[in-house]
Amino acid sequence: MVGAGQLARMTHQAAIPLGQSLRILADSADDGAALVAHDVVVGDYRNLEDLRAFAVGCDVLTWDHEHVPNEHIAALQSEGVVVRPGPEALRFAQDKTAMRKRLSELDIPCPRWAPISSQDDLDAFARDVGWPVVVKAARGGYDGKGVWVIDSAAEAEELLASGTELIAEEKVALARELAADVARSPWGQGAVWPVVETVQADGICVEVIAPAPDLDAELAEQAQQLALRIAAELDVVGVLAVELFETTDGRLLVNELAMRPHNSAHWTIEGSRTSQFEQHLRAVLDYPLGTTELTAPVVVMANLLGGPDDVTPKGIDERVHHCLAHWPDVKIHLYGKGFRPGRKVGHVTALGTDLAEVRARARAAADYLSLGDNRG
Amino acid sequence: MVGAGQLARMTHQAAIPLGQSLRILADSADDGAALVAHDVVVGDYRNLEDLRAFAVGCDVLTWDHEHVPNEHIAALQSEGVVVRPGPEALRFAQDKTAMRKRLSELDIPCPRWAPISSQDDLDAFARDVGWPVVVKAARGGYDGKGVWVIDSAAEAEELLASGTELIAEEKVALARELAADVARSPWGQGAVWPVVETVQADGICVEVIAPAPDLDAELAEQAQQLALRIAAELDVVGVLAVELFETTDGRLLVNELAMRPHNSAHWTIEGSRTSQFEQHLRAVLDYPLGTTELTAPVVVMANLLGGPDDVTPKGIDERVHHCLAHWPDVKIHLYGKGFRPGRKVGHVTALGTDLAEVRARARAAADYLSLGDNRG
Repeated sequence: MVGAGQLARMTHQAAIPLGQSLRILADSADDGAALVAHDVVVGDYRNLEDLRAFAVGCDVLTWDHEHVPNEHIAALQSEGVVVRPGPEALRFAQDKTAMRKRLSELDIPCPRWAPISSQDDLDAFARDVGWPVVVKAARGGYDGKGVWVIDSAAEAEELLASGTELIAEEKVALARELAADVARSPWGQGAVWPVVETVQADGICVEVIAPAPDLDAELAEQAQQLALRIAAELDVVGVLAVELFETTDGRLLVNELAMRPHNSAHWTIEGSRTSQFEQHLRAVLDYPLGTTELTAPVVVMANLLGGPDDVTPKGIDERVHHCLAHWPDVKIHLYGKGFRPGRKVGHVTALGTDLAEVRARARAAADYLSLGDNRG
Repeated sequence: MVGAGQLARMTHQAAIPLGQSLRILADSADDGAALVAHDVVVGDYRNLEDLRAFAVGCDVLTWDHEHVPNEHIAALQSEGVVVRPGPEALRFAQDKTAMRKRLSELDIPCPRWAPISSQDDLDAFARDVGWPVVVKAARGGYDGKGVWVIDSAAEAEELLASGTELIAEEKVALARELAADVARSPWGQGAVWPVVETVQADGICVEVIAPAPDLDAELAEQAQQLALRIAAELDVVGVLAVELFETTDGRLLVNELAMRPHNSAHWTIEGSRTSQFEQHLRAVLDYPLGTTELTAPVVVMANLLGGPDDVTPKGIDERVHHCLAHWPDVKIHLYGKGFRPGRKVGHVTALGTDLAEVRARARAAADYLSLGDNRG
């Protein structure tokens, strides 16, 4: 696996029972996954030579993030390295212009959009859809980075001058955000988890509720079918996360695609008989996929973000101690990172039957770990 | 963790979400846990210098097996190394004479027993309890090794002459074998899983059924209380497995003790909200213990033993492929070992509601992995 963040860390965890051991290409020896895997190579994922050297002896290469240059992935493939997902699929997770074009061709519902390169383009687009307009960097954005809500063309002046490739999207009337997570194997087997609600704050996912509460059954199935269809049409291998907008008038629009294990499915570690990490491995190793049955009626995952305070390792350990004592049934996942303000350093998962109770439990545990005794 | 077998391998897996990473003392770099953990030291657990060097920088030392010399563990402790469980507790898992003496003092029900060092001792013991008599090596036995069923004193001649310290035990009228698995933290918090039935063949555990079917509720609670009491009286820290005989006249007798994660609780990985591996780590790290609630009404674990045939890694991979296709809801755990005849190379876990169905599913999947298409 190229990349050594929490996704690689949790994928390695899932590899162990399958009799596998991940080789990890890490930026640094103290990356989250590098701390726990045996076979760690420190190198630069932007450097084709590093990727080539890393790939020697690997059965298959897969990705912890979208930032490996697509041309490098294509080069590796042409040299006989098995890459899953492959460059043709990954392009649509790396380049929003390509993704919007392709989904539009497939008649997959998306927000109205246009590529823009000038204030005139932006004005023309806004005449159709109205202000404000959402402007996105075509490449490299995540967790709210690379996304701007713009009220006038003048406001985008600097951005347009920066040379960043941009697209404009209508600002949809949003009821909430959902995600449909699926997996697809090389020969086309698909598996789908229940559609979840992803709760965002400042563009960062803070909670995931599985299944999405009070979601219309027809809409849920539509979302799942949509995700399976995208996976098949784009020839995705592995996990595909389809981030969706549910609009106030009851439509589903595709927001983003990710072709790797995704924050919206961390709940599956305890909440589904097959976790997204195991499923991703099964898919990229060309094993049959596992059952996605839930282990509880309600599962809530809350991200653990670094709070405003500096916390020493001892301080974190004390919080973990208190958290485990207070919530013996909440599962903690720490990513081996320092607690920097706003940084995703872990997550917690709670399971149960009553949505309000489970959600409050997950929230309280995550807040305690994040803030310690300084909670409001 | 000292020792790098499957228990260390699965403990490392459980350490990852807790933000931990095990340091492993391995006999060899290709031991099961050494293949998947980052911090691996190859050394000899029988050598105090190796243990001392290994312990430097560890927060706490714990054990994958019982074979570390007790005097070495005591020496480490006296030098300030935190060892959990400690030498005083471990003595009773390493030395059956000491264990039987101590449990007898505590009025814990055991088979009638006596230390023996001659045919006269054995004859005298058999006059009380009748032939056949079970003779056990006081130290070093496991998986049926070091246990002999003896019909006459003459039959034990060679054994008695070997210099091995021996004890004799009555051969109890056995209804079945059970196990009560508990965990205990340094300050005395206890946690207990439901009592399970352990199905043996040729002295090796082949299946574990959780909870033990049709077990009298009073007897089940008695077994749990017994195990918690032994953990407390012997000052165990970590997981304690108490292997029990259920006699045909409805009594419980303690067979063996193990002070580490144990085969009888592998089912907890998927079958309980807190696995024995997570619980062992919580205990030895002095964290509060987790809930032991079950995730399904019936959980069956079947050990995966190497079959009579040599199987290449490719052959194993093909079996895994077919197994995952046929039983998408059975969870496979491979220990990173070659498939040698009779060797424990992995296990599978099945969950559900109907005992016969779940047990048949687990059995069939394990048999397929073990035997491939050569099933009877």
